[in-house]
Amino acid sequence: MKILLIGANGTIGQAITQELAPRHDIITAGRNSGDVRVDLKDFSSVQAMYAQVGAVDAVISAAGNVHFGALAEMTPELMGIGLADKLMGQINLVLAGQHVLNDGGSFTLTSGILSHDPIVYGSSASMVNAGIDGFVISAAIELTRSLRINAVSPTVLTESLASYGPFFRGFESVAATKVARAFSKSVEGKQTGQVYRVTG
Amino acid sequence: MKILLIGANGTIGQAITQELAPRHDIITAGRNSGDVRVDLKDFSSVQAMYAQVGAVDAVISAAGNVHFGALAEMTPELMGIGLADKLMGQINLVLAGQHVLNDGGSFTLTSGILSHDPIVYGSSASMVNAGIDGFVISAAIELTRSLRINAVSPTVLTESLASYGPFFRGFESVAATKVARAFSKSVEGKQTGQVYRVTG
Ligand SMILES: NC(=O)c1ccc[n+]([C@@H]2O[C@H](COP(=O)([O-])OP(=O)(O)OC[C@H]3O[C@@H](n4cnc5c(N)ncnc54)[C@H](OP(=O)(O)O)[C@@H]3O)[C@@H](O)[C@H]2O)c1
Ligand SMILES: NC(=O)c1ccc[n+]([C@@H]2O[C@H](COP(=O)([O-])OP(=O)(O)OC[C@H]3O[C@@H](n4cnc5c(N)ncnc54)[C@H](OP(=O)(O)O)[C@@H]3O)[C@@H](O)[C@H]2O)c1
Repeated sequence: MKILLIGANGTIGQAITQELAPRHDIITAGRNSGDVRVDLKDFSSVQAMYAQVGAVDAVISAAGNVHFGALAEMTPELMGIGLADKLMGQINLVLAGQHVLNDGGSFTLTSGILSHDPIVYGSSASMVNAGIDGFVISAAIELTRSLRINAVSPTVLTESLASYGPFFRGFESVAATKVARAFSKSVEGKQTGQVYRVTG
Repeated sequence: MKILLIGANGTIGQAITQELAPRHDIITAGRNSGDVRVDLKDFSSVQAMYAQVGAVDAVISAAGNVHFGALAEMTPELMGIGLADKLMGQINLVLAGQHVLNDGGSFTLTSGILSHDPIVYGSSASMVNAGIDGFVISAAIELTRSLRINAVSPTVLTESLASYGPFFRGFESVAATKVARAFSKSVEGKQTGQVYRVTG
C-alpha cells in the first residue's frame, strides 16, 4: 500500500514507520520534517499536500497540538489551539482526503486516553480527544467508496514519560511499538468506525 | 437556589423551567428571548451576562447550534459552526462562570446521543457532543470552591420528532419532562463529572 503518514518524525510516527515500512510504501509528512511539508491547521495546505502526493491507500495522522494548562486560566483562545490543530487539523485530512483517496482507502487519526480518563491541566485535551473519537464513529457511516476511518487512542507512551510523566502519575504507560500495532490493525485490517484504546 | 438558564425558550429549556421553577428562582437567557440576552459564541457577551445577573448557584445551558449535513459536503467552516456555538459557547459559560458562581455552584451543559450513536449528516454533532462530554469529565476534577459540572446527553426528544424524526429513524425518543429530570439531578444533587445519558 501507499501510505501517507503525517507526524512521521514524532514519537508515535517513528514507531508507526518501523511497523509499516517493511511491508508498505510510506510517504512522510510534517510541519518541519518529512517528504512533504504540511500544516494540518491550514485546509489549503492539506489540499496542497494531497495534490502533491497523488492518490494514496491510507492516511495516518500521528500529529496535533493542544494547550495544557489550568482550567482556572483557560481562555477561549487557549482552547482554540487544540480545536484548530489536533481536532480540526486531523478532520481536515478527512474532509479533503475523502475526495482523493483510492477506493477502499483508510484514515487513522490519533486521539488519546484523556477523552475518558482526565488529568489536571488536560481539559482542552479531553475535549479534543473526545471530539476526534466522536467524529470518527460518525464519519465512518457516511464515507463512500468503501473508505474507512478509525482512531487510535493511546495512554501515555513510555517513551514520553520523561517529558509528561509528572502529569500522568499512576497511569500505566505503553510502549510506542504497541501503539504502532493499533495503526497496523486499522490500516491493514478492514474495520471501520472503531476507537482503539491502547492501554499499558 | 438562583439558577441561570440559557436556552430557556427552547424545547428542553421550557421543560427545565417547568421542573425547577416551583422550587427555585430562574433567570432565563437566550439570544432573542429571556430576562437576559446573550450570544454564547461571544465570550464578552457571556461575561456581560454574568456581570448583569450577579452571583448564581447554578448555570444550566440548553442551547447551542451545530450544522447538520453530508460528510461529503462538510467544510472546515461548516464544522466551525458547532465548534464555536454548541461546543465553545457552552465552554465559555464555564471558563467565565468558574470565577463568579457562588461556592458549591454547578454547571450543567447539554450534549446529546450522537456522541456515541451516530446518524447520517451528524458528523459535526457527534464531534461536538463528544467534545462537551470530554470537557465536562475533565473540568470536574479541576474546579475549585466545590463547584460542580455535569452534562445531560439526551436522545432525540419526542417533542422534536416532527422536525428531526426522519434523521432518527429507529431511535427511541424521550419526553422533555424526563430530560428535565436529569437537569434536576445535576443541579439539586451533588454529583460532578457525570454525563447523564437520557434514553427513551
Ligand atoms: N506521546 C504520548 O504519550 C501520546 C499519548 C497519547 C496521544 N498522543 C497524541 O499522539 C500524537 C503524536 O504524539 P507524539 O508524542 O508522537 O508527538 P511528537 O513527538 O511531538 O510529534 C508530533 C509530530 O506531528 C507533527 N505535527 C504536529 N503538529 C502538526 C501540524 N499542525 N501539521 C503537521 N504536522 C504536525 C510534527 O511535525 P514536525 O516535527 O515536522 O514539526 C511531528 O512530526 C499527538 O496528537 C498526541 O497528542 C501522544
Ligand atoms: N431537541 C432534541 O431532540 C435534542 C436532543 C439532544 C440534544 N439536544 C440539544 O439540546 C440543546 C437544546 O435543544 P432544543 O431542541 O431545546 O433547542 P431549541 O428549541 O432550538 O432552543 C434553543 C434555545 O437556545 C438558545 N440559543 C441557541 N443558540 C444560542 C446562543 N449561541 N447563545 C444563546 N442562546 C442560544 C435559543 O435562544 P433564542 O430562542 O432566544 O434564539 C433557544 O432558547 C441543543 O444543544 C441541542 O443540540 C436537543
